[in-house]
Amino acid sequence: MKPVVVTDIARVETPVIGALGGHGVATVHEAMGRSGLVGASLRPIQNGIRIAGSAVTVLCWPGDNLMIHAAVEQCREGDILVVTTTSPSLDGSFGELFATALQHRGVRGLVTTGGVRDVAELRAMGFPVWSAAVNAQGTVKATAGSVNVPITVGGAVVRPGDVIVADDDGVLCVPRPAARGALEAADARVAREEESRAAYRTGELSLDRNRLRGVLAGLGVRYLTAAEYEAGDGSG
Amino acid sequence: MKPVVVTDIARVETPVIGALGGHGVATVHEAMGRSGLVGASLRPIQNGIRIAGSAVTVLCWPGDNLMIHAAVEQCREGDILVVTTTSPSLDGSFGELFATALQHRGVRGLVTTGGVRDVAELRAMGFPVWSAAVNAQGTVKATAGSVNVPITVGGAVVRPGDVIVADDDGVLCVPRPAARGALEAADARVAREEESRAAYRTGELSLDRNRLRGVLAGLGVRYLTAAEYEAGDGSG
Amino acid sequence: MKPVVVTDIARVETPVIGALGGHGVATVHEAMGRSGLVGASLRPIQNGIRIAGSAVTVLCWPGDNLMIHAAVEQCREGDILVVTTTSPSLDGSFGELFATALQHRGVRGLVTTGGVRDVAELRAMGFPVWSAAVNAQGTVKATAGSVNVPITVGGAVVRPGDVIVADDDGVLCVPRPAARGALEAADARVAREEESRAAYRTGELSLDRNRLRGVLAGLGVRYLTAAEYEAGDGSG
Amino acid sequence: MKPVVVTDIARVETPVIGALGGHGVATVHEAMGRSGLVGASLRPIQNGIRIAGSAVTVLCWPGDNLMIHAAVEQCREGDILVVTTTSPSLDGSFGELFATALQHRGVRGLVTTGGVRDVAELRAMGFPVWSAAVNAQGTVKATAGSVNVPITVGGAVVRPGDVIVADDDGVLCVPRPAARGALEAADARVAREEESRAAYRTGELSLDRNRLRGVLAGLGVRYLTAAEYEAGDGSG
Amino acid sequence: MKPVVVTDIARVETPVIGALGGHGVATVHEAMGRSGLVGASLRPIQNGIRIAGSAVTVLCWPGDNLMIHAAVEQCREGDILVVTTTSPSLDGSFGELFATALQHRGVRGLVTTGGVRDVAELRAMGFPVWSAAVNAQGTVKATAGSVNVPITVGGAVVRPGDVIVADDDGVLCVPRPAARGALEAADARVAREEESRAAYRTGELSLDRNRLRGVLAGLGVRYLTAAEYEAGDGSG
Amino acid sequence: MKPVVVTDIARVETPVIGALGGHGVATVHEAMGRSGLVGASLRPIQNGIRIAGSAVTVLCWPGDNLMIHAAVEQCREGDILVVTTTSPSLDGSFGELFATALQHRGVRGLVTTGGVRDVAELRAMGFPVWSAAVNAQGTVKATAGSVNVPITVGGAVVRPGDVIVADDDGVLCVPRPAARGALEAADARVAREEESRAAYRTGELSLDRNRLRGVLAGLGVRYLTAAEYEAGDGSG
Repeated sequence: MKPVVVTDIARVETPVIGALGGHGVATVHEAMGRSGLVGASLRPIQNGIRIAGSAVTVLCWPGDNLMIHAAVEQCREGDILVVTTTSPSLDGSFGELFATALQHRGVRGLVTTGGVRDVAELRAMGFPVWSAAVNAQGTVKATAGSVNVPITVGGAVVRPGDVIVADDDGVLCVPRPAARGALEAADARVAREEESRAAYRTGELSLDRNRLRGVLAGLGVRYLTAAEYEAGDGSG
Repeated sequence: MKPVVVTDIARVETPVIGALGGHGVATVHEAMGRSGLVGASLRPIQNGIRIAGSAVTVLCWPGDNLMIHAAVEQCREGDILVVTTTSPSLDGSFGELFATALQHRGVRGLVTTGGVRDVAELRAMGFPVWSAAVNAQGTVKATAGSVNVPITVGGAVVRPGDVIVADDDGVLCVPRPAARGALEAADARVAREEESRAAYRTGELSLDRNRLRGVLAGLGVRYLTAAEYEAGDGSG
Repeated sequence: MKPVVVTDIARVETPVIGALGGHGVATVHEAMGRSGLVGASLRPIQNGIRIAGSAVTVLCWPGDNLMIHAAVEQCREGDILVVTTTSPSLDGSFGELFATALQHRGVRGLVTTGGVRDVAELRAMGFPVWSAAVNAQGTVKATAGSVNVPITVGGAVVRPGDVIVADDDGVLCVPRPAARGALEAADARVAREEESRAAYRTGELSLDRNRLRGVLAGLGVRYLTAAEYEAGDGSG
Repeated sequence: MKPVVVTDIARVETPVIGALGGHGVATVHEAMGRSGLVGASLRPIQNGIRIAGSAVTVLCWPGDNLMIHAAVEQCREGDILVVTTTSPSLDGSFGELFATALQHRGVRGLVTTGGVRDVAELRAMGFPVWSAAVNAQGTVKATAGSVNVPITVGGAVVRPGDVIVADDDGVLCVPRPAARGALEAADARVAREEESRAAYRTGELSLDRNRLRGVLAGLGVRYLTAAEYEAGDGSG
Repeated sequence: MKPVVVTDIARVETPVIGALGGHGVATVHEAMGRSGLVGASLRPIQNGIRIAGSAVTVLCWPGDNLMIHAAVEQCREGDILVVTTTSPSLDGSFGELFATALQHRGVRGLVTTGGVRDVAELRAMGFPVWSAAVNAQGTVKATAGSVNVPITVGGAVVRPGDVIVADDDGVLCVPRPAARGALEAADARVAREEESRAAYRTGELSLDRNRLRGVLAGLGVRYLTAAEYEAGDGSG
Repeated sequence: MKPVVVTDIARVETPVIGALGGHGVATVHEAMGRSGLVGASLRPIQNGIRIAGSAVTVLCWPGDNLMIHAAVEQCREGDILVVTTTSPSLDGSFGELFATALQHRGVRGLVTTGGVRDVAELRAMGFPVWSAAVNAQGTVKATAGSVNVPITVGGAVVRPGDVIVADDDGVLCVPRPAARGALEAADARVAREEESRAAYRTGELSLDRNRLRGVLAGLGVRYLTAAEYEAGDGSG
């Protein structure tokens, strides 16, 4: 694969991105048929922040952040930088100086399979990050990679221009062609969940609401009192 | 093992549970002869919360939360839901809708060897969770399991009705028959520790307070100045 | 290696330590030629705290904290306790009573490859800790070890009297003979970074500021529009 | 828990143990309703060996093998030593001298959540081991523990006298009261599997043999040619 | 994503597959510009075996092997089954009965991100496997998935009909359109390596052969005798 | 730290190295007071091989093997190459071509915290390796490092010219100044162990041979029959 920087990538319409961000990771993931999660190993360095934006992808050599420097120029208002390396590396390839430059361009946050540093400063300036590690270990700027090519992040494929949603539950990638459909499905799901929430607050059981008592019976689940169970009725 | 839901389990008296909760995980663990910890891999999603309650146990198939639905009905005021799977799974089998239903019934929190999601919402509604992962990955409701049978959680056996204590230090299981004895031992330990704390605040050394100088001498530990050590007196 | 407690260790002058602490882990690490980090596996139990001090080193047997008791007496104002075990152990060998005694002596914090407990209490009393785990599992006081001998912590060698800097980014060890030189290099680096920060806030690109466009070209990185890339011009 | 060595434990009849060993781990596990596995983290140091025997259990302090010394005396012909520690430790607490003594008494092998050493010698003398690690790190003989009490090994509870089966697939614990029933279920399963094996060798499909085509259809699984799929008929 | 079984997939010509298999994983990976590896976490259960074949892909629910049953029918002479789950699961979803059926159809081996069991039998019958775990834990046949859709395996995307090469070094995926080009590049590389091998056997240094002495000098690497280094000439 | 290649390092006398290799890792480790192990994470790619030699140390940048090329020239008959990276990297930086060149120079094997590839070829040519991973991922030759400086490997410090002993139990580093003393202690230990081995073969117990019955009694360990234990005499 020859190194390349791809410019002028297509992005999803801003209102769709904003609405997906309003729903959050777990809801949109369910609405997409339980797909799109970007690995449970990427964790936020802050609490209570939810963002959505267009992916600008970066593929670096381990221990080298040259291509992040090249990627900054490709970012614009509403983007999220998504970084990985050609083989696993937790070096701290991103810090407060990069965040300063990206915040100037309106970038909403960083998702990386590597490490970050200056995390106290990043929290203070309100630049959100989801990463595999916090690590002060520095990197060099010596080896070629690519910007805005498809990459694999936490076991998921992220293409430039895909919609990234990230919050305390993790990181989700909505493929660009699927964004509008995912939003419609998420809208419908949220409405259903609000009805369930209200019902549960009054004491209704999900066993009844989801008609699961019949499922349990069909699977052979028996109800026994503790006395019956200890008397051996529950043994195999 | 045939699937079963056990009802009407026995629980420890409420004042004993409350007093164990007041002492916290590390103290009761020490008072029980350094036993009862439920694996260091279960971590809280919040800081500064300490709870105690009666275990309602749930054994699920990986990737399936059907039996959590069945378990809600078995919970009452003062209980803690304790969930594991038949083989390891970090899927997000628990979220805000479950917590809404459980909070209505007076349940105090969740301990799970799996994953949770909606963690921002769970923190906001004050429903405490100790889990092995935060993970938005959803689950199905298709396979039988059991409620209120003995389960193994983080290497420890938890039986229904055992007392669970959980705080920032981890999760502890006090077997139901041992609860009263553990409380008495913990009360005594706390009194001794308060005396030590006061002594240390005035500069007394634990070396003297615990009579450890003789232990060190008996084990052959020598005291050398840095100059003596560098001159080779400390070498083997 | 015979067990030994080394007394009267040499330390770096207080103003140098204070100034290194002002710069923080990532900056001093870079100034030292990207060396000195103490393993990414040691994480703080608190956020937003930065400390620096002189290392008092402790080598314990796994599951045994006898030598921490011996080490307290060797600590003085401005020290940081650095603890490891002869083979890996995450038991909770340190808690609030030790912190009470150390705080009385002016010790600034703890770095340990083991576990800590009473973390809610430690946070409340403002005693900072960097550790490999939070773990309520208690330890015994039965086996000999050493105080103030060179130890290996997170893959780095720490000698007594070395300067430890610790913050949200991790833990750094500055060898005692290198402290003054590291401070001078860090001072220079901070001045350069402040200029870069100001430039990035006005939109200058690091590609230009660091003259990286030529590097990219020399490595064969090509710029393509998305249309050109999809047409196959970017393939190998 | 006070330290104790329990003598004169009950064991399962020898022919039942032998027959369970003949079936192996995967088959007996299935016959027990997919229960009884002792954690996937315990791996054999040799290939192609299958053993079965009665568990003699040992609970040690981490970094200490005193109780293995005490356990040797409790072992007899046909036993398997099962060792764990009160908190995780991978130190090499077992080697060739222990195996020499155990082989003299007719012990069939070792299962341990800790480490072993002298593995070349152990392979040469034909003493099989399943362990969590190979580790030359030595241990002391200083702290009390117990022999022949219930222990938790790889997330499973092992009681003294339970039947242990171990082979290249892992380690299985058959509770003593369940041994005869497990053997009958395994015998039946093996007969069914032999029929399936013969059928598959002639080209019959498990889809047909297990009547799974209806299951697939009921779950909504569609069959498409690659051409149809690429034309979009397979999309959500 | 709706569940689907895709039939009649395209494959690469047999001689190209055979020749790629002759070169092995490391060589073809280098020839492809150091791309295509399928995660270092998948390890062979046997030594010294090298295979190549066409990928038939399977996407299962964790703890469920229903879709492997469906996939057998889609396999033909020269294929390799490639299995993953929608979220991580190390359950033993594959064993000797599946291998018996696949061997009848001429399938060359299995690559799976899950676990396998019956490994002694698999080795004895010569059915090679690369997996993330050996695990006797059984699975159910209850949940829908897909066959012959693109999947992500160990961080790499595998499409049906891609060429899989696997040996002791790991698993490689050669995308179907790239197979012929990869073979030509590998042929050329092997010729160059044979020249290097012959040179190294006569004592030539890679420093000279690859003209690296100039690179070292350009990077500022100095040569010092041990005496000079200890005299301080090597310090920073 | 400026990059440097140190030449003309001192080594231990050949007969001492040979005799240490005859004793093996576990024995010499014990004879050194249970010190010197090089981390349990480095595992052999072969079985049944034991080597000893003089360390030639290499410090590489992650993903880069330039300095291994430089190190070959510094190796001579009887050396062992010991490689690590400035931050963790499991890339396959070593393969059969390097082994060909090293074997020509009489080098006995490789110890690396990184990955190796061509492992089938390495086994076939009899070049032994202890590594943290098998990984086909290739590396570049672009960044400076050092040869024959002190490095940290698996938590242990290795200095050029130290004696490395490696076998199925792991890797041991004997500091050069301690080699002769370690050999004498190992000789004595082997003699004592041979006496114990003979005694255990005749049925003597280590409990008696090491006078451990008194230790057990002093620690409060009680002996109970299973009947007494189940009657509650063993409870706390």
